[in-house]
Amino acid sequence: MSNTNIKKIGVLTSGGDSPGMNAAIRSVVRTCAFYNVECVGIYRGYQGLIEGDFKEMGPRSVNHIIDKGGTILKSARSKDFRTFEGRKLAFQKIIEAQIDALVVIGGDGTFTGAEIFNKEFNFPVMGIPGTIDNDIYGTSHTLGYDTALNTVVEAIDKIRDTASSHNRLFFVEVMGRDAGHIALNAGIGAGAEEILIPEEDLGLERLLESLKRSKTSGKSSSIVVVSEGDKIGKNVFELKEYVEENLPEYDVRVSVLGHMQRGGSPSCFDRVLAARLGVKAVESLLEGKSNYMVGLLEDKVALTPLEQAIKGHSRIDQELLKVSDIMSI
Amino acid sequence: MSNTNIKKIGVLTSGGDSPGMNAAIRSVVRTCAFYNVECVGIYRGYQGLIEGDFKEMGPRSVNHIIDKGGTILKSARSKDFRTFEGRKLAFQKIIEAQIDALVVIGGDGTFTGAEIFNKEFNFPVMGIPGTIDNDIYGTSHTLGYDTALNTVVEAIDKIRDTASSHNRLFFVEVMGRDAGHIALNAGIGAGAEEILIPEEDLGLERLLESLKRSKTSGKSSSIVVVSEGDKIGKNVFELKEYVEENLPEYDVRVSVLGHMQRGGSPSCFDRVLAARLGVKAVESLLEGKSNYMVGLLEDKVALTPLEQAIKGHSRIDQELLKVSDIMSI
Amino acid sequence: MSNTNIKKIGVLTSGGDSPGMNAAIRSVVRTCAFYNVECVGIYRGYQGLIEGDFKEMGPRSVNHIIDKGGTILKSARSKDFRTFEGRKLAFQKIIEAQIDALVVIGGDGTFTGAEIFNKEFNFPVMGIPGTIDNDIYGTSHTLGYDTALNTVVEAIDKIRDTASSHNRLFFVEVMGRDAGHIALNAGIGAGAEEILIPEEDLGLERLLESLKRSKTSGKSSSIVVVSEGDKIGKNVFELKEYVEENLPEYDVRVSVLGHMQRGGSPSCFDRVLAARLGVKAVESLLEGKSNYMVGLLEDKVALTPLEQAIKGHSRIDQELLKVSDIMSI
Amino acid sequence: MSNTNIKKIGVLTSGGDSPGMNAAIRSVVRTCAFYNVECVGIYRGYQGLIEGDFKEMGPRSVNHIIDKGGTILKSARSKDFRTFEGRKLAFQKIIEAQIDALVVIGGDGTFTGAEIFNKEFNFPVMGIPGTIDNDIYGTSHTLGYDTALNTVVEAIDKIRDTASSHNRLFFVEVMGRDAGHIALNAGIGAGAEEILIPEEDLGLERLLESLKRSKTSGKSSSIVVVSEGDKIGKNVFELKEYVEENLPEYDVRVSVLGHMQRGGSPSCFDRVLAARLGVKAVESLLEGKSNYMVGLLEDKVALTPLEQAIKGHSRIDQELLKVSDIMSI
Repeated sequence: MSNTNIKKIGVLTSGGDSPGMNAAIRSVVRTCAFYNVECVGIYRGYQGLIEGDFKEMGPRSVNHIIDKGGTILKSARSKDFRTFEGRKLAFQKIIEAQIDALVVIGGDGTFTGAEIFNKEFNFPVMGIPGTIDNDIYGTSHTLGYDTALNTVVEAIDKIRDTASSHNRLFFVEVMGRDAGHIALNAGIGAGAEEILIPEEDLGLERLLESLKRSKTSGKSSSIVVVSEGDKIGKNVFELKEYVEENLPEYDVRVSVLGHMQRGGSPSCFDRVLAARLGVKAVESLLEGKSNYMVGLLEDKVALTPLEQAIKGHSRIDQELLKVSDIMSI
Repeated sequence: MSNTNIKKIGVLTSGGDSPGMNAAIRSVVRTCAFYNVECVGIYRGYQGLIEGDFKEMGPRSVNHIIDKGGTILKSARSKDFRTFEGRKLAFQKIIEAQIDALVVIGGDGTFTGAEIFNKEFNFPVMGIPGTIDNDIYGTSHTLGYDTALNTVVEAIDKIRDTASSHNRLFFVEVMGRDAGHIALNAGIGAGAEEILIPEEDLGLERLLESLKRSKTSGKSSSIVVVSEGDKIGKNVFELKEYVEENLPEYDVRVSVLGHMQRGGSPSCFDRVLAARLGVKAVESLLEGKSNYMVGLLEDKVALTPLEQAIKGHSRIDQELLKVSDIMSI
Repeated sequence: MSNTNIKKIGVLTSGGDSPGMNAAIRSVVRTCAFYNVECVGIYRGYQGLIEGDFKEMGPRSVNHIIDKGGTILKSARSKDFRTFEGRKLAFQKIIEAQIDALVVIGGDGTFTGAEIFNKEFNFPVMGIPGTIDNDIYGTSHTLGYDTALNTVVEAIDKIRDTASSHNRLFFVEVMGRDAGHIALNAGIGAGAEEILIPEEDLGLERLLESLKRSKTSGKSSSIVVVSEGDKIGKNVFELKEYVEENLPEYDVRVSVLGHMQRGGSPSCFDRVLAARLGVKAVESLLEGKSNYMVGLLEDKVALTPLEQAIKGHSRIDQELLKVSDIMSI
Repeated sequence: MSNTNIKKIGVLTSGGDSPGMNAAIRSVVRTCAFYNVECVGIYRGYQGLIEGDFKEMGPRSVNHIIDKGGTILKSARSKDFRTFEGRKLAFQKIIEAQIDALVVIGGDGTFTGAEIFNKEFNFPVMGIPGTIDNDIYGTSHTLGYDTALNTVVEAIDKIRDTASSHNRLFFVEVMGRDAGHIALNAGIGAGAEEILIPEEDLGLERLLESLKRSKTSGKSSSIVVVSEGDKIGKNVFELKEYVEENLPEYDVRVSVLGHMQRGGSPSCFDRVLAARLGVKAVESLLEGKSNYMVGLLEDKVALTPLEQAIKGHSRIDQELLKVSDIMSI
């Protein structure tokens, strides 16, 4: 396929890890092997790039990792790579190792680093969106998002068991500092009574009214799913206090799901997505393309310029907000 | 919302059950309540329709079912409904119960019944695709398909553990008589070495070659995922014999995953899809539409005429076949 | 079997719920049916007993609950039952309903209530230990404990994925105010580097030393499992601060697993245990026994006087502490 | 601790693999490190012993395997080791590698090999019971048994979903050629209507009666769990035919769970058990003991002479048979 001079591709993971990163590494490595291109794994993201922490990888190097959470290449945030000196060092290591192109797996920050690097050194880069938050423009799904949704829903199912047994209200905090995708979708999936997300300020008044209505409608338990970055101005512990003061009929508890949302064996969806994106990333580099993110748009693999992927916003679907309202009747 | 005279909607599940059917029932029932429309649950599909096996359902009737596999309304195949006499009886029961429209959840056969019924009695019907096989035209995903993929992948992950420990080859049969979606996607997700589907005849020769190559490439185990309806002309037990004769270096085992693929708590994806499709089905009826299937197309909820949904074919994506090839290098 | 006049048995769940309570209710109900004794479900524990919140239960009333977390009879803590007046009211309701004996499913507090009630009204009672904490004397396992261990281990496995990818240290808080069984067993099961439990004060010094050693030994991540009631004098958030100050080489995170530990579908072990304890509880009452707890001792179902079960202590096994030390080398 | 001359211990897994074997390897390796004894991993069981397929293992060699099914040391059945010549070769390899004692993880066959080897060469051996079947005398639980029970129960829970939706009867075949432990415990755990095991011949007549009773009692579905080695004289496919002929009111399906029962991430119970048995195996060797199996008896780690472990029988508990009968009322 190669109509370029690319003979060796480097792959790294950077930023917060997410389930499916290993499956994506596997896909990049095997696609390289398929097209007779060498592949080099770069440890600890951009920091490992600067330090030359490399390892040759063949198709058997990635056996039995498709089902593993985390990233075998490790991830890290690199201060050095934010400086020109750091990036210059990285470029030297790349030249020494005769790497001709890079596939970077990560989120916004990862892509920003890649784009700057591409501009400064005219070096071919391709991005694969790997983050549970699904907050990347240019793809309907980021790697790890579907897995995280299932993890959250399974956790809330368990919380529902005990909430129902005691007729309790739970505030459950899920990840998502800037984006409410996890909260909104997992909230609908878990049958939440209310969902608080960064994109929308429900308002404390409406929350109280909703909870009152929920109680009188005969529900035996209530779950309110809260994004880390919700706009209501109170965290889950403050929300608990606020509701206990204003609706003393409620027995309130709090649960912060935390980092378990980042781990776990990837769902089938995330594994297949990883395979598809890895293939497309390598093929696109071999076709001479550069500076794109490989994503999923309307069920098809598609390229978006890295610049757009970084600047754009992944919007919350208004239809889902309405569906959530109707479901909690 | 209602610009029609629809005051009572009936809902039923028919054909093979799938995870997410309960979530769809819940969505239909709650959407009816939201729009102040009465809702009637019809037991055992079209057979219960003929027998008048009905139950009034309010928003609390569907508490705590969103996470349950199967269908609380039960499912059945009805011979009587295939006759005009049967359908006439069903229509009489519908008139007696003052039901103004029907939402039917199921697959091809279910939709065929609904379409005939609609034509004969000019009665408003709306279909929701519920089947694990994903073999319905007009929707990228049927209810239960995503859950079944995860079930299959988790099962094959377990089989991989023991296959690797003994350097064995497994033929794993998964559901899909006419469609290879489960086999192809779960096969990629589970890292299968080969995937046999109804849409494509790999040929026994190529299978042997592929397995030979797999052995020499240093793989410690091999999984071949086989659709029930594969075109290679041998079932998994015959394939085992065939390979043992021709490649005696392989220690071969067989696993037929069977009906566990139809059950289990639905994934977040299937729960959210169920919520969306249920809302759209009821809203569409209230807007005066009829004889459509509600599905997901390019990530949006969309209507497809039932007739097209029945006649059309859900195609296998050629890109996925290529991805599968590359991954098994 | 009955050599008593017991013709109707009441069953209730009280205190914190735990997985397996539904399976135990099912066992009590079906064992009653097996011996032709009527069975009455009492809602919301002792509070429902006082309020006469009863429901006749036959073998089909408990279909499809064996796999459900929580308790279909609901649970509650009753202030009224702590007064003699409350208990007298409860006794009147029992007489009115012609209930001849009680099976109570719960923990220490539940048994204390039952024992007082038995003494005051000479009323036959039998206890089944249901709590995830495993802090009951007279049984090696309480209902829900095994399930909770698996829930905790699965959550920490996920946390380990992300901890390893970033070379991080996590403090993971698990349930257990007075007993370290969950922390110790799940800690060993999850491969924790240190485990802090209420029964033992490791000391902050030794914790620091252990973490230093862990770092130099080449471990890529560290998990410290902390019981709610640990004796080290700091909660997980304070521990994070303390370690960050004293071991700045560590990137520390905190996770509080919370109420999801109480829910979920019970493990096979808990379901079988529930079946065995329910059978024994009913049979013992029918044999004229009273005021015992039914438990598991050395793999056999055995009776312990309620008084002993309440006063005794469930000890931490010293062997396990040693095993934990060795494993974290 | 060592009051012997043991300075290097070899560890291998042999026979059918089971979840928890990796955790046991980890425990043996780390306990060796704890006591400053070298440890050597032997690949592919006795065959690898004969071929000198060895690898030095330190505490970091076993990072991140506690949660993995299968065995990183691989397993195999060795014909050569059944001959004296083969065992002599193995002994030579052991001498060359300066291995002073062996820990073997497996079942009956594995222990038989170890015992003969011990007698012929007076070489210290210690056995750890690893098999999902729980058919070993001298331990209440074998490694992998608890995990397999959960795997089976989760699979049958899924089958129950679809069985209930269609009012069907399922025959579910589970592993256990000579022992009904899996069938009996998982059957109770899954709420099976009947359980067919090798230790007891229920008889076809009683099966039919039981199924008739089940139908008239109003059950919406029936599950019959069947051990591979059941004594009723028909396999699950023949049972389906037989019941369809004799009870045409039943819609019957069959599911053979197969090899997925051998895999999967071990339960907390199996991980803790593996840790305990590994510690005890190494400590016992260092104390000069040999030719024992390390097992769990009445919740304590205990030694049983290998000879007894091989000859003895692990009995089915009569109490459980009664409990199973009562539960299916």
